[in-house]
Amino acid sequence: MDYFYGPGRNHLFVPGPVNIPEPVIRAMNRNNEDYRSPAVPAMTKTLLEDVKKIFKTTSGIPFLIPTTGTGAWESALTNTLSPGDRTVSFLIGQFSLLWIDQQQRLGFNVDVVESDWGQGANFDILASKLAEDTAHTIKAVCIVHNETATGVTNNLAKVRKILDDYSHPALFLVDGVSSICALDFRMDEWGVDVALTGSQKALSLPTGMGIVCASPKAIEASKTAKSVRVFFDWKDYLKFYNLGTFWPYTPSIQLLYGLRAALDLLFAEGLENVFERHARPGKATRLAVEAWGLKNCTQKEEWFSDTVTAVVVPPYIDSAEIVRRGWKRYNLSLGLGLNKVAGKVFRIGHLGNLNELQLLGCLAGVEMILKDVGYPVKLGSGVAAACAYLQNNTPLIASRV
Amino acid sequence: MDYFYGPGRNHLFVPGPVNIPEPVIRAMNRNNEDYRSPAVPAMTKTLLEDVKKIFKTTSGIPFLIPTTGTGAWESALTNTLSPGDRTVSFLIGQFSLLWIDQQQRLGFNVDVVESDWGQGANFDILASKLAEDTAHTIKAVCIVHNETATGVTNNLAKVRKILDDYSHPALFLVDGVSSICALDFRMDEWGVDVALTGSQKALSLPTGMGIVCASPKAIEASKTAKSVRVFFDWKDYLKFYNLGTFWPYTPSIQLLYGLRAALDLLFAEGLENVFERHARPGKATRLAVEAWGLKNCTQKEEWFSDTVTAVVVPPYIDSAEIVRRGWKRYNLSLGLGLNKVAGKVFRIGHLGNLNELQLLGCLAGVEMILKDVGYPVKLGSGVAAACAYLQNNTPLIASRV
Amino acid sequence: MDYFYGPGRNHLFVPGPVNIPEPVIRAMNRNNEDYRSPAVPAMTKTLLEDVKKIFKTTSGIPFLIPTTGTGAWESALTNTLSPGDRTVSFLIGQFSLLWIDQQQRLGFNVDVVESDWGQGANFDILASKLAEDTAHTIKAVCIVHNETATGVTNNLAKVRKILDDYSHPALFLVDGVSSICALDFRMDEWGVDVALTGSQKALSLPTGMGIVCASPKAIEASKTAKSVRVFFDWKDYLKFYNLGTFWPYTPSIQLLYGLRAALDLLFAEGLENVFERHARPGKATRLAVEAWGLKNCTQKEEWFSDTVTAVVVPPYIDSAEIVRRGWKRYNLSLGLGLNKVAGKVFRIGHLGNLNELQLLGCLAGVEMILKDVGYPVKLGSGVAAACAYLQNNTPLIASRV
Amino acid sequence: MDYFYGPGRNHLFVPGPVNIPEPVIRAMNRNNEDYRSPAVPAMTKTLLEDVKKIFKTTSGIPFLIPTTGTGAWESALTNTLSPGDRTVSFLIGQFSLLWIDQQQRLGFNVDVVESDWGQGANFDILASKLAEDTAHTIKAVCIVHNETATGVTNNLAKVRKILDDYSHPALFLVDGVSSICALDFRMDEWGVDVALTGSQKALSLPTGMGIVCASPKAIEASKTAKSVRVFFDWKDYLKFYNLGTFWPYTPSIQLLYGLRAALDLLFAEGLENVFERHARPGKATRLAVEAWGLKNCTQKEEWFSDTVTAVVVPPYIDSAEIVRRGWKRYNLSLGLGLNKVAGKVFRIGHLGNLNELQLLGCLAGVEMILKDVGYPVKLGSGVAAACAYLQNNTPLIASRV
Repeated sequence: MDYFYGPGRNHLFVPGPVNIPEPVIRAMNRNNEDYRSPAVPAMTKTLLEDVKKIFKTTSGIPFLIPTTGTGAWESALTNTLSPGDRTVSFLIGQFSLLWIDQQQRLGFNVDVVESDWGQGANFDILASKLAEDTAHTIKAVCIVHNETATGVTNNLAKVRKILDDYSHPALFLVDGVSSICALDFRMDEWGVDVALTGSQKALSLPTGMGIVCASPKAIEASKTAKSVRVFFDWKDYLKFYNLGTFWPYTPSIQLLYGLRAALDLLFAEGLENVFERHARPGKATRLAVEAWGLKNCTQKEEWFSDTVTAVVVPPYIDSAEIVRRGWKRYNLSLGLGLNKVAGKVFRIGHLGNLNELQLLGCLAGVEMILKDVGYPVKLGSGVAAACAYLQNNTPLIASRV
Repeated sequence: MDYFYGPGRNHLFVPGPVNIPEPVIRAMNRNNEDYRSPAVPAMTKTLLEDVKKIFKTTSGIPFLIPTTGTGAWESALTNTLSPGDRTVSFLIGQFSLLWIDQQQRLGFNVDVVESDWGQGANFDILASKLAEDTAHTIKAVCIVHNETATGVTNNLAKVRKILDDYSHPALFLVDGVSSICALDFRMDEWGVDVALTGSQKALSLPTGMGIVCASPKAIEASKTAKSVRVFFDWKDYLKFYNLGTFWPYTPSIQLLYGLRAALDLLFAEGLENVFERHARPGKATRLAVEAWGLKNCTQKEEWFSDTVTAVVVPPYIDSAEIVRRGWKRYNLSLGLGLNKVAGKVFRIGHLGNLNELQLLGCLAGVEMILKDVGYPVKLGSGVAAACAYLQNNTPLIASRV
Repeated sequence: MDYFYGPGRNHLFVPGPVNIPEPVIRAMNRNNEDYRSPAVPAMTKTLLEDVKKIFKTTSGIPFLIPTTGTGAWESALTNTLSPGDRTVSFLIGQFSLLWIDQQQRLGFNVDVVESDWGQGANFDILASKLAEDTAHTIKAVCIVHNETATGVTNNLAKVRKILDDYSHPALFLVDGVSSICALDFRMDEWGVDVALTGSQKALSLPTGMGIVCASPKAIEASKTAKSVRVFFDWKDYLKFYNLGTFWPYTPSIQLLYGLRAALDLLFAEGLENVFERHARPGKATRLAVEAWGLKNCTQKEEWFSDTVTAVVVPPYIDSAEIVRRGWKRYNLSLGLGLNKVAGKVFRIGHLGNLNELQLLGCLAGVEMILKDVGYPVKLGSGVAAACAYLQNNTPLIASRV
Repeated sequence: MDYFYGPGRNHLFVPGPVNIPEPVIRAMNRNNEDYRSPAVPAMTKTLLEDVKKIFKTTSGIPFLIPTTGTGAWESALTNTLSPGDRTVSFLIGQFSLLWIDQQQRLGFNVDVVESDWGQGANFDILASKLAEDTAHTIKAVCIVHNETATGVTNNLAKVRKILDDYSHPALFLVDGVSSICALDFRMDEWGVDVALTGSQKALSLPTGMGIVCASPKAIEASKTAKSVRVFFDWKDYLKFYNLGTFWPYTPSIQLLYGLRAALDLLFAEGLENVFERHARPGKATRLAVEAWGLKNCTQKEEWFSDTVTAVVVPPYIDSAEIVRRGWKRYNLSLGLGLNKVAGKVFRIGHLGNLNELQLLGCLAGVEMILKDVGYPVKLGSGVAAACAYLQNNTPLIASRV
């Protein structure tokens, strides 16, 4: 079962699924349990309470759904909207594209606001659409906080500002899949109505839990939303929350214990420190890319992502070959370029459970691969740039001071 | 994180989630991986090929969906039916009830064929409905192979026979959640169009994978079915099957390796031997119940289930108290009575990775608990009856002969 | 690597190695670490402090030696005695025999006090030897607290009493391998000079740590003892204790974390409750043996062991065949009869991480095997006797009340 | 239990204990087992056969002793020598010093041949001693193949040559603790009489198994050797080998399964490829040290070690501070300088389960730490040098081509 085994650790730098902390792997190393015993509800109660903290919400209601990010999207949409409802949705890369595709297939009337891949969401167009929409036909604004395909982070505070400027009642639905637990996310402050993430991203768990958090306004909307849904229906969850047994159907025991351990680690480190631990590799990676003389797919600094960097390769190089070489030669897993940027970019994920030396090993690997495929990189240049920054900025590990 | 810890092993006798074999726990004890590397598709290919064997199909197409049994139901229905479609569905217990509820909420016109809880599906009514339906308004017959709430196994060959007798083209949709990998299941022979199970049942994995298998006729139906679906849409899977990358969205790496290990164990043991390993505890448990002077909730032998036994308690006893005592005193997890039989039955699950002495420990525990709650059981009587049967019938462990 | 795999759990009832609690397995599921970092000494410090509690000593000094019980014996002897020294040592079964053999091979002058196998140590002879020994030529009294081969527990308080009665200065060396953490052990109260156990016994860890605890008098003796030793020399440990780095050579990181988890579980349960949890299966097993009409190898109640029961089979049965059948048919691991009692007894270990229903499953298995091999046992009889006792005596699990 | 937890992986670069491959961690993630069942002897038989391959011996007899390297030394010495026997033993660093100390404490007459720390064994002196020893008073030549404290590898073929030149019958005892499974080791070809290693070194297992391999000549010697020993006595092992039960006392079940998995991985990779996988990081590390302008503790190229590099720091820097910073700031575990070179060198272990990018991450970390402590290193310089070499020399991973 390990027929592709390579010596040493796999260097996992795709932007998800990410490295699981060893204490979390340990916590999940267990047999099944009866989820109707007193133990599972007791633990679930702590999870639901604590998971709100990663959304920075006190009034939101979280749902831990046995699904992926795609299912979490579907849960967010079908519980709050009715077929034919108009949404404004930003298309800036592969994942926003997929979400828009889902919105269309679910029967919504999607007003797509497209940007070049590598740019952030176009808020001017949002403003003009809201300005025009005095009849409030727009029922939801849908945005991906961090577009994983291009490494673009959108400014969510601005979205809220624009909605407020026009006193527009549209729901504010946010895909936080590659941001939550890595980038600062403020559900209550930003008036987000549904926020969601997946367990295998910055939470650093295995895939299999879609975490959706709904504002009171979203919960209210769910009471009248006519989209057909059963598996993803919040109503069933709310019914079992009230019963105190919490689960309308069987959860993964292992993921529950894993989530408990993951949250414990995040809170012990401190969420703000976690964000800093993501900001440093983000900056360091961008400095390395610059030193290599390559272009960041993200076109402006305001959109730079601290969870993933998409690196543009020269036209004479196939970025997929870089990814293949990494896996074949150095046990390094990089992200492919997707769709429009296939062959043109490769991606370095720097989110989740990671530290500086892991990143530097990855950057050294990328340098050697760039040389392998014929790009005239100066070996050591990117690592030097990253080190110069990190050596001045990495703090001591709090528990070891 | 183990605040409800009790010494020794937990005796897990709910009818799911069930005990995970230790080699499977080991196989899943791992970090995440890039699911777009060559390794994951290579393994997935073997899984899709091998998983057909547990359905006994060669022409079916399996889908390994990151969901639960409830999601697997939804996948089966929404991919094959359109809103308003008429289904005939048998209500014989809590899980068939929930599936019917789902069918109704998904917008189908459900023709419910109800039996007393403890009885099997009423096939006479099915026959008469099919006979009348010369216009073929019935689009699907939906049945739970093994009703987990009452311990009733339906005879699927009979359903096929009746459909054939009337040359009725309705799709044949089967919930095999608590049967597949434990009871003989013959998808091709019985002309089942969609069969499904969940990873945490007889496959003995953690929860989180809904396994759905579609016949060519079901695949054909999916091309025109108008039910709205995205996450559960087979089309996306089929597209990625064709690409050879297999996954429309992120699977659980751990569950894939777990499934590989689980299938390896099942095939090494031999599926027919696995069924025998379920038949023995089924019979032994029923003999114990008889020895205790208690009634099996299942009303006739033809419906006896080899994966779960629902035991009826005398009216002066609350069956929930038996379950509570088991957990509190003996680290024993029994199944509650659900809905109509709440308080009236408790359930002994005997499916999945289990052997004789585990069952006998459970039966001994049940005897002591029965006495605890005031039922005048003769201690040792059930175990004696079970032992008398098992001592004559348990074969040697094949690998140790 | 699982070529002898059998479905379900292995029922491990040898008197060591015993079942490891799942939280302990989890705690050991980890990579290696630098044992010279600040973390390992910090944890070691807590271990050395806490491990004294399982010996009930405040003045003793513990050593956690990477070895087995055999090595722990050697450590106890070579650190306190010089070649030619006279010891009084009780021979009551295979393990006391092996210890005596070691004493002789290490060059001591062993005064063997032999009993029939199935009897406890003969204290009258000890008394007379001490009485005669006015010259104090006896340097040590060596005794196995619980003889694992015959299921005989010796009364250590009596040994101390006799030593005191004669004001004899001999060191009091105790093998607590199958007693410590299962039977009450009072190092300080009983004036034990060296006590030892192995990790794979009642501590319920993997094999690999010999735990030796030395009284101040033993430490004093070690300064002049002339037995050649290096690996087992306490001096090296004491040197590193003083340095605060604790380890003269590399410890097993996994066992250290495992020990931490094991101690945490034992203390959470409460040592006195742990002893009770051993007394119950001890009693229940003896009642079952009686109900089967078989003889306990232990000849008198005062010597009954609560950690292992050696069951005498009729002369026409080979007890080894019972053990073989258990493994081959029921995935049950029983203990063989050793040496003098080979073929005549089989052993049921009931120590370590175990609960009532596990034991009852084992007893049911033994009944069926007895019948298999031709003994006319009444099936269910032993379980009934055990249940009658346990149903009245097993308390609720403390954490679940 | 994780109070010193730091985010991301620990970068383990001490020269032992080393990183355990994930498949090996998985293999050891298990409950205890009865070591007297048919399964454990069957597996042990394969282990004893296969472990010979890592020694490159066909005639040697291996012993898998539950102990550490220190115990393995003691086993090698006490089984082959008698008190007062003369040994020639090379002192070239801390571990050869400790072995010599052990030899002296065990009562041998040790003829110490000392070199400067950083130099290899002085073979001229060996030659002259053998030349003089026509009476064959020298009973054994004891040498550490790879001195872990200074990163010095001795040429064992030369030792054999010299012994042969003088037709000297002395036993040839070799500590292969930090060489075997990493550096080419040829027991039969070099006429080594006892070779030994520890599980936590290049075998990449947890600590706890001392692996000792004895030539027929050593086995013969053990029959008359008069050193007192019991726990370490080969005789007891040989007795149980003959019985086919293999174990004189309880082995660690987990380590046996771990060893099985570790050997499987090594053989799948190919031992010669494993040596190459150690040669590359060895060379790369030395190139980095050179680029940093620092000195290798090893004074000549002929002694360069491919498993550990001891780096000399300038006099104004305390090398222990480098190690401390690595742990506190970068979750990096480096080796301290020991004894004579304490404060003067730090050590980079590059043995066991490791790959290029892990090493490069470590080297980048060392650069930053050097800068932290005031050494004027050019950031990126060492990594650049290492990359330049590795980019030209690292092969594709065999299983992924």
